[in-house]
Amino acid sequence: MLDHLFKPGSVAVIGASTKELSIGNRVIKNLQDFGYTGPIYPINPKADEVRGIKAYDSITDVPGEVDLVHIVIPNKFVPMAIDDCGKKGVKVVIVNTAGFKEVGGEGEDLERQVVETARKHGIRVFGPNCQGIINTDPEIRAYCNFTFTKPTPGHISIVAQSGGVAEVINQRFSELGVGVRMYASNGNACDVSIPEIIRYWGDDPETRVIVLYVEGLPNPKEFMDAAAEVAAKKPILGMKAGRTDEGAKAASSHTGGLARKEIATELIFKRTGILTFRDEEELCQAAVAFASQPIPDGRRVGLITNTGGPAIIATDELVDAGLEIPPLSEGAASSLKENLYEAASINNPIDVLATANAGHFRAAIDTLMDEDDIDSVYINFVTPFFVDTESIAKEIAEVNAVAKKPIICNLMTDKNQWSTTIGTLKDGGVPCYSFPETAARSLIALTRYNELRANTGGEIRTFDDIYVQGAREIIDGAFDEGREFLRSADTYGILESYGIPVAPWRRATGAEDAVRAAEEIGFPVVLKAESSSVVHKSDEGGVALDLRDGDAVREAANGMTRRIAADDLEFLVQGYVEGGTEVIVGATEEEGLGHLVMFGIGGVYVELLEDVSFAVAPVRDSEAGEMLDSLKASKLLTGFRGRSGVDRDTVIEVIQRISQLVTDMPAIREIDLNPIIAHEDRITVVDARIGMKEG
Amino acid sequence: MLDHLFKPGSVAVIGASTKELSIGNRVIKNLQDFGYTGPIYPINPKADEVRGIKAYDSITDVPGEVDLVHIVIPNKFVPMAIDDCGKKGVKVVIVNTAGFKEVGGEGEDLERQVVETARKHGIRVFGPNCQGIINTDPEIRAYCNFTFTKPTPGHISIVAQSGGVAEVINQRFSELGVGVRMYASNGNACDVSIPEIIRYWGDDPETRVIVLYVEGLPNPKEFMDAAAEVAAKKPILGMKAGRTDEGAKAASSHTGGLARKEIATELIFKRTGILTFRDEEELCQAAVAFASQPIPDGRRVGLITNTGGPAIIATDELVDAGLEIPPLSEGAASSLKENLYEAASINNPIDVLATANAGHFRAAIDTLMDEDDIDSVYINFVTPFFVDTESIAKEIAEVNAVAKKPIICNLMTDKNQWSTTIGTLKDGGVPCYSFPETAARSLIALTRYNELRANTGGEIRTFDDIYVQGAREIIDGAFDEGREFLRSADTYGILESYGIPVAPWRRATGAEDAVRAAEEIGFPVVLKAESSSVVHKSDEGGVALDLRDGDAVREAANGMTRRIAADDLEFLVQGYVEGGTEVIVGATEEEGLGHLVMFGIGGVYVELLEDVSFAVAPVRDSEAGEMLDSLKASKLLTGFRGRSGVDRDTVIEVIQRISQLVTDMPAIREIDLNPIIAHEDRITVVDARIGMKEG
Repeated sequence: MLDHLFKPGSVAVIGASTKELSIGNRVIKNLQDFGYTGPIYPINPKADEVRGIKAYDSITDVPGEVDLVHIVIPNKFVPMAIDDCGKKGVKVVIVNTAGFKEVGGEGEDLERQVVETARKHGIRVFGPNCQGIINTDPEIRAYCNFTFTKPTPGHISIVAQSGGVAEVINQRFSELGVGVRMYASNGNACDVSIPEIIRYWGDDPETRVIVLYVEGLPNPKEFMDAAAEVAAKKPILGMKAGRTDEGAKAASSHTGGLARKEIATELIFKRTGILTFRDEEELCQAAVAFASQPIPDGRRVGLITNTGGPAIIATDELVDAGLEIPPLSEGAASSLKENLYEAASINNPIDVLATANAGHFRAAIDTLMDEDDIDSVYINFVTPFFVDTESIAKEIAEVNAVAKKPIICNLMTDKNQWSTTIGTLKDGGVPCYSFPETAARSLIALTRYNELRANTGGEIRTFDDIYVQGAREIIDGAFDEGREFLRSADTYGILESYGIPVAPWRRATGAEDAVRAAEEIGFPVVLKAESSSVVHKSDEGGVALDLRDGDAVREAANGMTRRIAADDLEFLVQGYVEGGTEVIVGATEEEGLGHLVMFGIGGVYVELLEDVSFAVAPVRDSEAGEMLDSLKASKLLTGFRGRSGVDRDTVIEVIQRISQLVTDMPAIREIDLNPIIAHEDRITVVDARIGMKEG
Repeated sequence: MLDHLFKPGSVAVIGASTKELSIGNRVIKNLQDFGYTGPIYPINPKADEVRGIKAYDSITDVPGEVDLVHIVIPNKFVPMAIDDCGKKGVKVVIVNTAGFKEVGGEGEDLERQVVETARKHGIRVFGPNCQGIINTDPEIRAYCNFTFTKPTPGHISIVAQSGGVAEVINQRFSELGVGVRMYASNGNACDVSIPEIIRYWGDDPETRVIVLYVEGLPNPKEFMDAAAEVAAKKPILGMKAGRTDEGAKAASSHTGGLARKEIATELIFKRTGILTFRDEEELCQAAVAFASQPIPDGRRVGLITNTGGPAIIATDELVDAGLEIPPLSEGAASSLKENLYEAASINNPIDVLATANAGHFRAAIDTLMDEDDIDSVYINFVTPFFVDTESIAKEIAEVNAVAKKPIICNLMTDKNQWSTTIGTLKDGGVPCYSFPETAARSLIALTRYNELRANTGGEIRTFDDIYVQGAREIIDGAFDEGREFLRSADTYGILESYGIPVAPWRRATGAEDAVRAAEEIGFPVVLKAESSSVVHKSDEGGVALDLRDGDAVREAANGMTRRIAADDLEFLVQGYVEGGTEVIVGATEEEGLGHLVMFGIGGVYVELLEDVSFAVAPVRDSEAGEMLDSLKASKLLTGFRGRSGVDRDTVIEVIQRISQLVTDMPAIREIDLNPIIAHEDRITVVDARIGMKEG
């Protein structure tokens, strides 16, 4: 519980200063200016008072209880100060001081000492190298932070690893006139973590939307658990920086941040139900809509406009993002015809005309609210001097107060001349934007969230026709032998244990044995050389395809024996699969996360166009289907211009079986089924590799 | 010359009204409020005065000369009013009234009458169905417009087809505190056109940047000529709406706008040197930078930051767009080491630390300005309370005043508390932004513009080894015959006349003739059936590939004769080309523009992935190369994983020869070389089609 952090009954500042331009002074000033409701205790052995408040020599001298202590003294004195806090019974410290993990070397040691000392006393640490927190709750008014933006109370809570980014976002909400509930920027995060903060806000009824910024996830599992739990209750809007190599480098050289697993972070966001953004402004603008609007049930937008061009731009933006602007029903059209100007356009977009009055707007909005095939309402509202814009605003606000569908308004106006109209809309909880693109993107975010929410949760299919014990024995054996990669026979054995269709295969110890094996399997076959000395079979002449009779097999085997000349040479004989489409399924372990499962179409699609999709294991049903559908070349899977498609259900099943395999067997570092030959009615793995974790 | 429109010596308003909330009143109020420097003449037979100014019964009663007349009376009276204006010797009319081409039918007739009447008197018409113009020139102060935003004088001029969009952009510059020079929104544009306005501003020294919004280009050639001429002198930042089908539909149903040629408009922008945007906010923000900053010579950005997270975000944004953040020279590093805090990061990004003072910032900026490998400077400047931000701002502004490299500043601050610092930067001409993404995107726009500028102009290669006369005779003959598509032999004849390498071919009239032709060409060959009754050869069994001897040719020819059984059946015998990569070159005529030339890689790349590139004919050298390089699968052309590449120079040459062909022969409606078989050392057209314009 982080109540002592976000709702402190009292705050002390170790390093309180009489100098105006110091953090030890500013923290106290901010608490005063923001109207903190509890007692403040400056700690400064050289001053009698700081900013008019009695100062104490030591935290232990403070007469009352102290919940929260700011520490703003030089880094090397911090562990000692925490020890003092322990003696006093302090609950939580915010360490603003820098010079810890982010500087490496001694700083890392110091940070370790901070954690150990605090743990000894049962103190929670926020930071170090951080800004602090803000809570706008009228009963608390805690501004435990040295920054400059003073938010008004609202329903958006902000947590950001970087103080600079937290401040920019907070500042933007302030400019937009939108309130904030709580704020936290925890820097090095040696103890109190972002997942913990998110979880705390999940239980805070006044927090309706959580805004999140991270540069890396030090503990993906902890993050996923907390985020999934909270995202089920309220929207989390997330942004991850360091997505380019250069950005990641900049991130890791700053505040000891972690910048790894680029694909993984966005997948984790998606998996847990966090809506991902790549732009702070877009995130802030969307948050405004999330804080007041319901989530639409679908993609179908009804547009109302009193000006032409901006409706075109909004249409472009919405349609580009996959939203729909469907035609209206006959009933709607006739109702509009009755209630709007004759020259008005009663299609969707509905152009009520620049001269439209409050009644016209109301009729159009009501029509869209009643329309079954419309999920959300977008309004372009320019304020011509010759109409009563105030009445129009009142109508929009009135509908908004009871609407079950979201309303988004692009309000094109002069903010000074039409301040009353703006106020009416804002006070009425109507999210207003200054550009059609901005308004459209916020509606797109609401709609994306609806689909994200529908896709999180969902089933993880598990298969019970699996011979786990057999697979486990092979894995354990390979692990004991310290193998980096499994032998082919073991690999195929494991796949078969997990019900994955493999081309029929036999091991063979020599040419004649191979011929016999081929005859058992049936021609044509493939012959592969197996030896600890062979790394890249095909490069070393260790693969022969499409062998059509015993002689061909014998000749190929003899050739390989000559070329490879290894004592441990054996052969793998496999049925040769003709035709079909090559697909690839793989999984790799990501530190602290589990496995990332991959799907792609073989050949140029993976290698040239990098057309692959990922999901975090265990893969849910909906995710597995999406892995196929999200490929740029996905049409190849359903059949394209005479080429037949693939057995979709079985491909999805193989993805799920591989997901189950790597989840069951964490000793597998990587697995690669490449290629799988997919036909319309079946699929067959024809080559596979399993790599093991180091023992 | 549009001086009478933008610098009117006097303005009359036909339809001047005493009613406050009418356009006929508001236009006069706006002129008054904005401080128009010339006389205003209200025309209203029922009033003695309007807004305190003497009114006249008719325009002909006005005592002085009248340059510009606003017409705000009902549509059907407009032609008559223009006739009166003619009698008075008026130079230009702004027709605000709607109900013309955009409503169709009678409106179109009325608009034609407007144009004819005006032409008779030598009057220029602006509109109809339009807002009007603004000129902030202190000696003019013309606000001939009924909208509400009053711009301050500046160097950006705005022209937009849609009044709503023009207003939004104007409003945004006003909010950003950035001045505007002139403004024009000409609605239906029956006479004064956007190209004409652009050309006028090209000659206006106070216009440094032109912002352009269109929904369609009614006359692409006129537009291209004007835009190319002006873009050579100053930046034009352009946006085109209606890029989705739905958006285009919305555009064409509004104000009689044209929404066609989606690819073409962006290509025309690029060809003429207009920087394309897809977002108004991004365009406005970029315009601020263009209005004060030099254009960088390259992509290499030096970053200075006093906060961590925003530097990561800026890095992501810049690198994603292809900009570079190169390491600094040793000299730069040692200079930084000497002048910055010890803990500062002297890499690029340079982290001067939150505590950095003016001297630190100055040292970092000077270092980047002196660094040869840096083309532009990006600054993240958060304003901590404990530093003297005003001094930092002064240093930045001081360098900016003389800098030859552009400076962009992401200023993270509270606009009220740090208003002096903001003022120092803005007055110093430093473009300031509130988010790292926004600042980065404006720098990206400057950099994109540098590359765009470098790519416009350039050579158009023309070939003199061409037998134009031969090609022309074939085309003329086909035209006279009223053919929709040329015969194959004619098609190949034209290609050969233009020096395009075609697989060897012969016409043959029967099976034996075909065998002889095949022997002349050399086996293997392809046999194609030719008949006016055969539309899709391969679907109708009219193509036989890889025929290896005379018997095979005979058999194929006899089979086709049986199947097709047409009186005019002939054969085309062609050399069969093996191996290689299939590419496609084509060209289609676009109304009012000339031809659009297309390039793609055959097979799934064109059909499934829609991986094609375009350029407007005549295609310049740089454009032809870019057509190859801009494909997603362009690596296939240079060779990829064992597959060899193609003869790049010859592919480029074929694109240019096709460009020359369609430019020489405007009767060609479409041409399609599909496929061309491209090998490493040669390319060969193996199938082609030429479609003719209707006679």
